[in-house]
Amino acid sequence: MLALASDTPRSWVEQVLPDLDKLLLDHAHCEKKAASNAINLIFRYQRDPRLMRPLSALAREELEHFEQMLDILDARGIPFEPLSPSRYAGELFRCVRHGEPERLLDTLLVSAFIEARSCERMKLLSEELPDPELRDLYRSLLACEARHHHDYVSLAEQLCGREVARARLPEIAAHEAHVVDTLPFEPRFHG
Amino acid sequence: MLALASDTPRSWVEQVLPDLDKLLLDHAHCEKKAASNAINLIFRYQRDPRLMRPLSALAREELEHFEQMLDILDARGIPFEPLSPSRYAGELFRCVRHGEPERLLDTLLVSAFIEARSCERMKLLSEELPDPELRDLYRSLLACEARHHHDYVSLAEQLCGREVARARLPEIAAHEAHVVDTLPFEPRFHG
Repeated sequence: MLALASDTPRSWVEQVLPDLDKLLLDHAHCEKKAASNAINLIFRYQRDPRLMRPLSALAREELEHFEQMLDILDARGIPFEPLSPSRYAGELFRCVRHGEPERLLDTLLVSAFIEARSCERMKLLSEELPDPELRDLYRSLLACEARHHHDYVSLAEQLCGREVARARLPEIAAHEAHVVDTLPFEPRFHG
Repeated sequence: MLALASDTPRSWVEQVLPDLDKLLLDHAHCEKKAASNAINLIFRYQRDPRLMRPLSALAREELEHFEQMLDILDARGIPFEPLSPSRYAGELFRCVRHGEPERLLDTLLVSAFIEARSCERMKLLSEELPDPELRDLYRSLLACEARHHHDYVSLAEQLCGREVARARLPEIAAHEAHVVDTLPFEPRFHG
């Protein structure tokens, strides 16, 4: 359903477990960045009213999750602090073509795959983490991430044509899987 | 309460009335820009956790109002389309000093005055517009704008010191009043 071209192994949870605090901090930053990405798209494509409402609603939801993650950090005594940008998103966006409508299509699909990978890893965390509170957190969040993935794919189909979007989807999926596979491991959401 | 150094005359409503559609469109853009301004501050000052939650909540509320304005535009058959940036905000931010913490203080206070001027004008619109639906809209929104003004001033006091913030407030107020007085009239929220 998420159209990912590779699966994160279950052992990824064991790998991040020693640095769970950093993973939670990274998660807070990811929500903030997801909101900012949606708002940047609203500004860049304000000539297309069809993008405005869905992206605004999506940004609001990401900000809600950002605040929820700040609460989790607070409750666990983990200070919120800056984090160097993860290489994942930067590498992923390199496949975005110049010129329109390719740039819009690719940006929407890359955004869709970031949500998809988050959703896939949240599912693993919801099943494998020893901490029941965090398992519940990730169970509650993963449905939203799946919906965001679906929203971005729907927007791409609606704005750029269903067949064009469907044809580009596996190419972006392959690129995303390559980026995830080749980046050195870090205890981060997309590391 | 809003600390504005000048009053918008009641006749401003008569002036914007012939271009009410443009005012409503401008209002939608203002809500979008207010959200983006809060998110930019979240990114620029992520080293200070005290800013994160209030600015995130504020951005969410601005996005809600943006969507509400999109509904109003739709219901009235006014197309949502790009609008050249209003000169008001650009002129206003020119008083922001370089170097920290002055830059943070000034940015928070400038943001506070944008909200204050919006609130003041929404009050006029809620009292003077012939259209009862729009009077209700502006009555419902002006309380939020007043709260946002207060939130920005509180953040400035909390982060930069109460006395320092209180001393700078009338200087920014005078600058804002000068900008509003000297810009040529346009049928826009801060025109």
